[in-house]
Amino acid sequence: MASGTLLYAQSGGVTAVINATASAVIEAARARKVKVLAARNGILGALREELIDTSKESAAAIRALAHTPGGAFGSCRVKLKSLQQDRARYERLLDVLRAHDVRWFLYNGGNDSADTALKVSQLAAEFGYPLTCVGVPKTVDNDLAVTDCCPGFGSAAKYTAVSVRECALDVAAMADTSTKVFVYEAMGRHAGWLAAAAGLAGDGENAAPHLILFPERPYDEADFFAKVKATVERVGYCVVVASEGIQTRDGKFVADAGGGKDSFGHTQLGGVASFLAGRVKDALGYKVHWALPDYLQRSARHLASKTDVEQAQAVGRKAVEFALKGMNAVMPVIVRTSDAPYRWKVEAAPLSKIANHEKKMPANFLRKDGYGITPAARRYLEPLIRGEAPPPFGRDGLPKYVTLKNVAVTRKLPPFAG
Amino acid sequence: MASGTLLYAQSGGVTAVINATASAVIEAARARKVKVLAARNGILGALREELIDTSKESAAAIRALAHTPGGAFGSCRVKLKSLQQDRARYERLLDVLRAHDVRWFLYNGGNDSADTALKVSQLAAEFGYPLTCVGVPKTVDNDLAVTDCCPGFGSAAKYTAVSVRECALDVAAMADTSTKVFVYEAMGRHAGWLAAAAGLAGDGENAAPHLILFPERPYDEADFFAKVKATVERVGYCVVVASEGIQTRDGKFVADAGGGKDSFGHTQLGGVASFLAGRVKDALGYKVHWALPDYLQRSARHLASKTDVEQAQAVGRKAVEFALKGMNAVMPVIVRTSDAPYRWKVEAAPLSKIANHEKKMPANFLRKDGYGITPAARRYLEPLIRGEAPPPFGRDGLPKYVTLKNVAVTRKLPPFAG
Repeated sequence: MASGTLLYAQSGGVTAVINATASAVIEAARARKVKVLAARNGILGALREELIDTSKESAAAIRALAHTPGGAFGSCRVKLKSLQQDRARYERLLDVLRAHDVRWFLYNGGNDSADTALKVSQLAAEFGYPLTCVGVPKTVDNDLAVTDCCPGFGSAAKYTAVSVRECALDVAAMADTSTKVFVYEAMGRHAGWLAAAAGLAGDGENAAPHLILFPERPYDEADFFAKVKATVERVGYCVVVASEGIQTRDGKFVADAGGGKDSFGHTQLGGVASFLAGRVKDALGYKVHWALPDYLQRSARHLASKTDVEQAQAVGRKAVEFALKGMNAVMPVIVRTSDAPYRWKVEAAPLSKIANHEKKMPANFLRKDGYGITPAARRYLEPLIRGEAPPPFGRDGLPKYVTLKNVAVTRKLPPFAG
Repeated sequence: MASGTLLYAQSGGVTAVINATASAVIEAARARKVKVLAARNGILGALREELIDTSKESAAAIRALAHTPGGAFGSCRVKLKSLQQDRARYERLLDVLRAHDVRWFLYNGGNDSADTALKVSQLAAEFGYPLTCVGVPKTVDNDLAVTDCCPGFGSAAKYTAVSVRECALDVAAMADTSTKVFVYEAMGRHAGWLAAAAGLAGDGENAAPHLILFPERPYDEADFFAKVKATVERVGYCVVVASEGIQTRDGKFVADAGGGKDSFGHTQLGGVASFLAGRVKDALGYKVHWALPDYLQRSARHLASKTDVEQAQAVGRKAVEFALKGMNAVMPVIVRTSDAPYRWKVEAAPLSKIANHEKKMPANFLRKDGYGITPAARRYLEPLIRGEAPPPFGRDGLPKYVTLKNVAVTRKLPPFAG
């Protein structure tokens, strides 16, 4: 039995498989007789000394965690600033780690979390406190550097491709007398990874989605309208997938143009799809529908990608392995060794190469006209949505998701007002 | 081999399982050596003499139709008026049926379609043309009279309950520092059946969905705000499910209040969830997200209810059986014989009892406070979402949906300008 405790925390937007990572972390640590605490609501729980004793959870509950979406211990949207600016909070963090004999800190999140884990490791070294910090990748945005892909993305991508394929069949059936243009809004504020995944729903000029709008290309309304019109005239209908983050040529978010106040002076939380739908209806006169799946796309564990689940679990296991080996300030990343057959492995990469970097979509993934994806993009994306890993369903027709007991660890420190 | 042809047409909004009905109709007719034509785009195809020869489809394709969403032959939103007002169209319909020796007409749709099938049968009798008309039930709105439930509803209900359960886990994980109120918009312009189904996602005061807004109850903003606030303070977050058709006390659709033009004078296709989200944000200051699944909820064949698929196929088979027996102007309806264990059978009901009627949700399905469902509603709804019937998925991670050849039958009549 290794001496000391492992602290695991979830950070940022949760996904359909971040709990699969948590499950793998806890199971790997248990196999090595290492005690695992989890921070409630991510880094906040570590600052507030709100820690959860995962040893109170049964083996069955931890196994069920692997098929439960959301973030079982709570996550948060908090970014610590630089060591200088947020010194007090970093020191508090170290105090809490020390108070609970935490020797391994696993932070499961995106760029910001990698940065926080890196800074905590630097501070621990400065104070001579023996701590191994490991970042664990997670984000539906697929924008982490170094890793070939990010756990969470594959399942959201599968949800997107399947949903677009399904609703396109609905639109096709009704187009003669009803909706002719359908707009599906995909997450992706800075990069169009999920919108690109929608491209897997069909291939060829007449297959839905007919037009994809990427944040990587400026939104040109006149050109878009012309393409919508041409598609409706050629195919009978037009399925559009729009990234929430598309921008005009002068760098303004299109969604903001549609937001603001409505005629009653109330905040109208528009979104891109709603805005585009209104514009297309006004300009072209077509009946338009749109969908905004929002959190559904990142929590749809019922439609998870098996590849994604396996990778989420693999990075969790490897994170524990790296931590216990004392590999400090690293992240287990996914390395693709072959497209066909798809092969991958997990390696360690330094957090310094990942923290605060953002992976953009390669330029050769976007079709020249800017409205679709290339064969290179398909080669990259397709393996990530491959395989099904449905949760068990109950007699009641609903997936059986677990709720943990989340038993609090007794506090050892005074409260922190930070 | 029976003499004559069977004509099958799909009508109104399509569902995840209307093709399962089509598949059953064609298989049942083939087993009896009866030729099946399908109308392209519903009744329009019958008027335009755009008919599809289903004998050109392989047995495998017809089998695959059972797990393919959308409407394989096309549907339409066209309601014929009374025999007096739309005489020319009814007569044209009869001409087309006669020209193709159609002796059995199966019309797969909702109230309006039942009405059309009834009128066609009356006109055929008037002209002495031997025709058997059978309505086949279908609608995600679950508002057909006589039948215990409507094929298509169970799958949309399952999609709704599963999606709400999943996104609620996401919201719960993030609520400490992010979204506190989430609004999910469910279809249902006149009756809150799908919103009610969301209630299956959880049970008890603190389980999501915390508040359901039904079109059956007037929307009272002050009361709603108070309930949202109390829920956030008690639970930490609040998941709201809103029927698209909720109305204020004076009978105005809430969605219309949020629609209209944005500050740029453009049409803003708001929807109820977007409107409520904006109002809650303004009034209570919470971070709010919302989802509008739109057509996704009625095309999500990947998450179909097994009960629903079985019932969709059963009404298709029975429709053929009734038609060939000469049972005119009837519809196969689902009769529930037991809640627990859930048992049902299919019987014939006269179209006259179904045409133009609308089944409302029973008053005892709504909780007294108007924001949730009762045990009676659960007893009714739960069996309808029971069981999984996923489509086969390909190596590419996507469901394998079939596209039919839809070979046109040679026209025998001059075009119709109606």
